[in-house]
Amino acid sequence: MSIETWEVSMTASGMELPEPSKASLQRARALQRRHGRKESGQFLVEGRQAVGEALRRPGVVDALYVTWDDALGNADLVDVARAAKVPYFGLSEQNLASITDTVSPQGIVAVANAVDVPLASVMAGPLRLVVICAQVRDPGNAGTVIRCADAFGADAVILSSDSVEVYNPKVVRATVGSLFHLPIVQGADLATAIDACRARGMQVFATDGAAGTDLTDLSGDLAKPTAWVMGNESWGLPVEHLALADRTVAVPIYGEAESLNLATAAAVCLYASASAQRASSDGGKQ
Amino acid sequence: MSIETWEVSMTASGMELPEPSKASLQRARALQRRHGRKESGQFLVEGRQAVGEALRRPGVVDALYVTWDDALGNADLVDVARAAKVPYFGLSEQNLASITDTVSPQGIVAVANAVDVPLASVMAGPLRLVVICAQVRDPGNAGTVIRCADAFGADAVILSSDSVEVYNPKVVRATVGSLFHLPIVQGADLATAIDACRARGMQVFATDGAAGTDLTDLSGDLAKPTAWVMGNESWGLPVEHLALADRTVAVPIYGEAESLNLATAAAVCLYASASAQRASSDGGKQ
Repeated sequence: MSIETWEVSMTASGMELPEPSKASLQRARALQRRHGRKESGQFLVEGRQAVGEALRRPGVVDALYVTWDDALGNADLVDVARAAKVPYFGLSEQNLASITDTVSPQGIVAVANAVDVPLASVMAGPLRLVVICAQVRDPGNAGTVIRCADAFGADAVILSSDSVEVYNPKVVRATVGSLFHLPIVQGADLATAIDACRARGMQVFATDGAAGTDLTDLSGDLAKPTAWVMGNESWGLPVEHLALADRTVAVPIYGEAESLNLATAAAVCLYASASAQRASSDGGKQ
Repeated sequence: MSIETWEVSMTASGMELPEPSKASLQRARALQRRHGRKESGQFLVEGRQAVGEALRRPGVVDALYVTWDDALGNADLVDVARAAKVPYFGLSEQNLASITDTVSPQGIVAVANAVDVPLASVMAGPLRLVVICAQVRDPGNAGTVIRCADAFGADAVILSSDSVEVYNPKVVRATVGSLFHLPIVQGADLATAIDACRARGMQVFATDGAAGTDLTDLSGDLAKPTAWVMGNESWGLPVEHLALADRTVAVPIYGEAESLNLATAAAVCLYASASAQRASSDGGKQ
């Protein structure tokens, strides 16, 4: 970073980037840990794509931190923050690195307010496709499942109480902004969530590599309102959880692989459901 | 590890685990780096699942290293190695950790001979479904694509010359043994690989989020012999690569997500092709 770049950035966006106070930096840093997130009800969002998505939702971003080095490239997002009266700050790469645990946050980090919602509020809306994560522990898989749920137009993602925290920075990163696109429920009791989905007229499918029914056998049923229950990335769904579903369904394995990983299995199931639902409801996509 | 456990393990499997020589350890350690792998034509395989798959292919495993602590749990694989006259060794956790770059190799690592094959040898066999990775650089994505290709019964995976090395330990780990299940071609010229597939009667589909045709529009064509070209995890396929394909195809995005990640997009495309091919060729799965 040089003084010139900073001046250019100020000129380009017509704004100054004030330095954050030590207290503000400390509050941001505390969000690296679960304890800090729980206490403040806030979490960190890194990178242009995710920060941009967070800024599109009013009231979500509490503060924006941009490195002077990348101020020019992020001037558009600073403009959005300013228009929304969100405090924004300029800082050195070192100071930004002290906030995040990642290597390349693209010079931009936001502090965001928690976005998860209670189970009851999800159940109040229209529901056609819901994803329930049971004991999903791996952050990358959980985040990618949320991204897939968003991509295939799911109405909500529900994480069971023993799943990874959705505000874990690795989960947030893997969602690539999808966290801000659809309702997320955290800490749900699995049986309660499944019952609630069923009470709303959804069939409940649990994924299980050993299931007798495979995805290509479901034909017409695929188009019905569905809640998909996805299990842990290592051990899948235990028998007592499989028993909570109406049906257990396997993604067909035609080769020698023992299994798919969680995120790819979820992608295939959600694609199959969402496409079947659209084909049946409007004779094609719209 | 205690002396007792070691003695129990010897009794259980009826064998001794000799210590490896310093030179043998050094040769294994050198395989952490690309240079070392290139020089020896060997690579490292970590964990029970992957080592087990490697041992099932004759002539692949060159040496087996097992920690004394986990000798009992790995006695079955040591037995397989012994029966196949593959040298096996016992060592401390510290010494095993010095070979691998991973945290939990489950106390077992194998040195394996390269398994990739020339493009021509793949083209000599029967072909219905092939995956071509163009400039895929992320090891986790590349490995997961290979695992999906295996799961959906693809006949081969071809990596372009500017893709990640398939023997990168992170790629090997993400394949979870699938690397040993289907032919892998490395370092292929993209245009040559595509031409070869077309010459063998396959249609060539390139994935592109912006494509006008989406996966659900393909109907009957999905069942034809197909080579799928998948692009880089960040920038996808550049125009000149898209132009090499017969058609560009998008996985439909029904929600607000900008895209899917590479491995989940590959999973959906391969599932769709493989299922359509099976439904058309035998009126259902077999």
